[in-house]
Amino acid sequence: MKTVYVKSLYRDTESYAGKSVTVAGWVRNIRVSKNFGFIELYDGSFFKSVQVVFGEELDNFKDIAKLNISSSLYVEGKLELTPGAKQPFEIKTEKIVIEGLSSPDYPLQKKRHTLEYLRTIAHLRPRSNTFSAVFRVRSLAAFAIHKFFNERGFVYVHTPLITGSDAEGAGEMFRVTTLDLDNLPRTQDGKIDTKEDFFGKETNLTVSGQLEAETFALAFRDVYTFGPTFRAENSNTARHAAEFWMIEPEIAFADLEDNMALAEDMMKYVISYVLENAPEEMAFFNQFIDNTLLERLDNIVSSDFGRVTYTEAVDLLKKSGKEFEYPVEWGIDLQTEHERYLTEQIFKKPVFVINYPKEIKAFYMRLNDDNKTVAAMDLLVPGVGEIIGGSQREERYEVLEKKMEELGFNKEDYWWYMELRKYGGTKHAGYGLGFERMIMYLTGIGNIRDVIPFPRTVGSAEF
Amino acid sequence: MKTVYVKSLYRDTESYAGKSVTVAGWVRNIRVSKNFGFIELYDGSFFKSVQVVFGEELDNFKDIAKLNISSSLYVEGKLELTPGAKQPFEIKTEKIVIEGLSSPDYPLQKKRHTLEYLRTIAHLRPRSNTFSAVFRVRSLAAFAIHKFFNERGFVYVHTPLITGSDAEGAGEMFRVTTLDLDNLPRTQDGKIDTKEDFFGKETNLTVSGQLEAETFALAFRDVYTFGPTFRAENSNTARHAAEFWMIEPEIAFADLEDNMALAEDMMKYVISYVLENAPEEMAFFNQFIDNTLLERLDNIVSSDFGRVTYTEAVDLLKKSGKEFEYPVEWGIDLQTEHERYLTEQIFKKPVFVINYPKEIKAFYMRLNDDNKTVAAMDLLVPGVGEIIGGSQREERYEVLEKKMEELGFNKEDYWWYMELRKYGGTKHAGYGLGFERMIMYLTGIGNIRDVIPFPRTVGSAEF
Repeated sequence: MKTVYVKSLYRDTESYAGKSVTVAGWVRNIRVSKNFGFIELYDGSFFKSVQVVFGEELDNFKDIAKLNISSSLYVEGKLELTPGAKQPFEIKTEKIVIEGLSSPDYPLQKKRHTLEYLRTIAHLRPRSNTFSAVFRVRSLAAFAIHKFFNERGFVYVHTPLITGSDAEGAGEMFRVTTLDLDNLPRTQDGKIDTKEDFFGKETNLTVSGQLEAETFALAFRDVYTFGPTFRAENSNTARHAAEFWMIEPEIAFADLEDNMALAEDMMKYVISYVLENAPEEMAFFNQFIDNTLLERLDNIVSSDFGRVTYTEAVDLLKKSGKEFEYPVEWGIDLQTEHERYLTEQIFKKPVFVINYPKEIKAFYMRLNDDNKTVAAMDLLVPGVGEIIGGSQREERYEVLEKKMEELGFNKEDYWWYMELRKYGGTKHAGYGLGFERMIMYLTGIGNIRDVIPFPRTVGSAEF
Repeated sequence: MKTVYVKSLYRDTESYAGKSVTVAGWVRNIRVSKNFGFIELYDGSFFKSVQVVFGEELDNFKDIAKLNISSSLYVEGKLELTPGAKQPFEIKTEKIVIEGLSSPDYPLQKKRHTLEYLRTIAHLRPRSNTFSAVFRVRSLAAFAIHKFFNERGFVYVHTPLITGSDAEGAGEMFRVTTLDLDNLPRTQDGKIDTKEDFFGKETNLTVSGQLEAETFALAFRDVYTFGPTFRAENSNTARHAAEFWMIEPEIAFADLEDNMALAEDMMKYVISYVLENAPEEMAFFNQFIDNTLLERLDNIVSSDFGRVTYTEAVDLLKKSGKEFEYPVEWGIDLQTEHERYLTEQIFKKPVFVINYPKEIKAFYMRLNDDNKTVAAMDLLVPGVGEIIGGSQREERYEVLEKKMEELGFNKEDYWWYMELRKYGGTKHAGYGLGFERMIMYLTGIGNIRDVIPFPRTVGSAEF
């Protein structure tokens, strides 16, 4: 049956006015009087439902009157404008075909449910207002990211998920294996014989695609990844998931300034795209989830992001007179309380903090001339704190080699990474944006479990 | 330093003609005479290099003359049109800054290397002509897929990679664990205590996001996934990888006809997009990899795909008189030889084969009224065979339940999947496209290891 999407009816109402249309969708709500009734019909293409008016002249009026919420229907009728009414138009029904019935124990009734409860029915929650909005915004934000990088000629690279190496020499990892745990193969000296495993060695799920992305940046100049990453950290917080998606651009012939400019442009682009393409959803979040949301996002789009060195930031925090739970001293890793104070109270806008002490940052970050700091950058935003972490990469073979020796790395594991510095290495830089953090930021949703379709967290891998 | 991309110079030559430009890139080739020289400078933004002419008036002429292939440079000079020459323009150099030297043992010298050898230097191979073309096409095809679905209002859903269930009741899986294999926790009766594992139970890497995508289709109507999937199959062939990307659209209020129409539109859209946006790369493949490529792709874009039932297809194959290695009988799973004969010899274009015997297809495919076949569809294309597999899904609770009982499924594991049939289920359909198969098809490249940046296959997880 040829159907029209509810989104088209809303976006192009004039051209459908007075015409006959067929809509397919699910009953969001139904009210029936003696000889007529109203259905709010939702088809998933748009945040709003369409109002369907039907009367007893329909053959199956009695069946329709008994429908439970979430039943699925085809509705044929005339679209009539209803100026002055709550809805801009309604469908005067000529025919209703019942496609699928719903049971009266349907768990998503009209009453409000807690987000915690809705997590237990993750297969149904995208039918609720909140989650239909969250997951449409997630989809649009993902597209905005691809569009942004595509317009700039970036090459999208799929870095591997199963890896034999540990990208940062840190981060707890999940082991991937086909060994029979009940019958582990052993070497002569009694150790597990990883040569017998699928890949002939121990493998894990990646924590970052950065190192592999660097190889592509030194071939294509501008590249990005956008894929799943994993952390086997036992942190049961509202901000940690074991499986999440990350965006990692990597740019060659570029320094920390170029990196910041890219991150700032990307953030503004994605936010603008979502505001423009999901106005109904964003208004909903502003009304029901966080009523400072739109103001905050508008502020980001229109302000120039601040820039401050770590050393200056530490001075500002110390001079602020604010008592922090975790005292501020040069050399500490900034905590969320410090980050939020900087961006919310001092700068009142997004701010890049750059040039962190080398001891608290990763081995691949470029050593500054002061020999004390590295060319790192964290982007802090109001309401969240750190949303992006990045750096200029160490492109000098000897400097990188020395650093790896200091940290006790097995250099042989990184032979290919080192070779990038041997065969026409260039200054280059990149950053990582946690996609779920971005969605939390865009929606005001406070728990990462509520921005992932089927979240994986410690103790939970349902559906 | 503000630089211009080589792609811009080629696409917008007129506006740069006679002007001073700065280009950053790597030396692809260098030839030096006594007092002048030529460099082919490649910056990764475009398939072609730009010709750089430099003379002894440069301060660092001697240093430049000694440069090895793959050294990185900034080149400043005037862009001069060279009508009639091999290159449409060249840069008359005013200044060259050496950014990074390359070692004389650089593995990618001018001579041709085998694809097998290049796999061992996967960190450098994107700098070669073949792989720069492959991975740019891969990137463009990925964008085309997102663009296609976005234009049609589809919601992009990230289905989980770590899963507690097995999507098809088939397909060998990788186990994901944080248990210490040297010290496995045991229950009282000596079994491995999976409750102690990270997620509190046994988990694996997914083989398909379809079942989860169905939950979203019954909320948003039209959705798709595009993400990594895994197979722990011990098949060391040119067409199998342990980790690959898959596209899985799922559409509600839709039957097998709608599904075929979507697949046909998508294939044509992606092929057209790549032909339009990577003409240099596609011409390269046609010249060096497969000289029937462009003809074949043009044929796909312009022909209406054929449709044939499995039963008719079997008859056609039997009547063809062709001797197949694997004899054709109603009930067999079609082999690649049969598929290719159908699409290449009989139809001479892409063809959908539909309504397969229920015994050889997955449990979730919709049973046809003949009680013998299911509403499955495979798309066969010349040169490859099957590239898409899909079906209308069984939306009838009782029929699905009976099927699962017949197959001995544990229905409790599928409670949420069954509930989709209880609360307003609708006819719906979907398919899977293996992204790497699509890239092989688009490029003519014969081995899946050569269309994945860092392939994972049995015995191999390098880089």
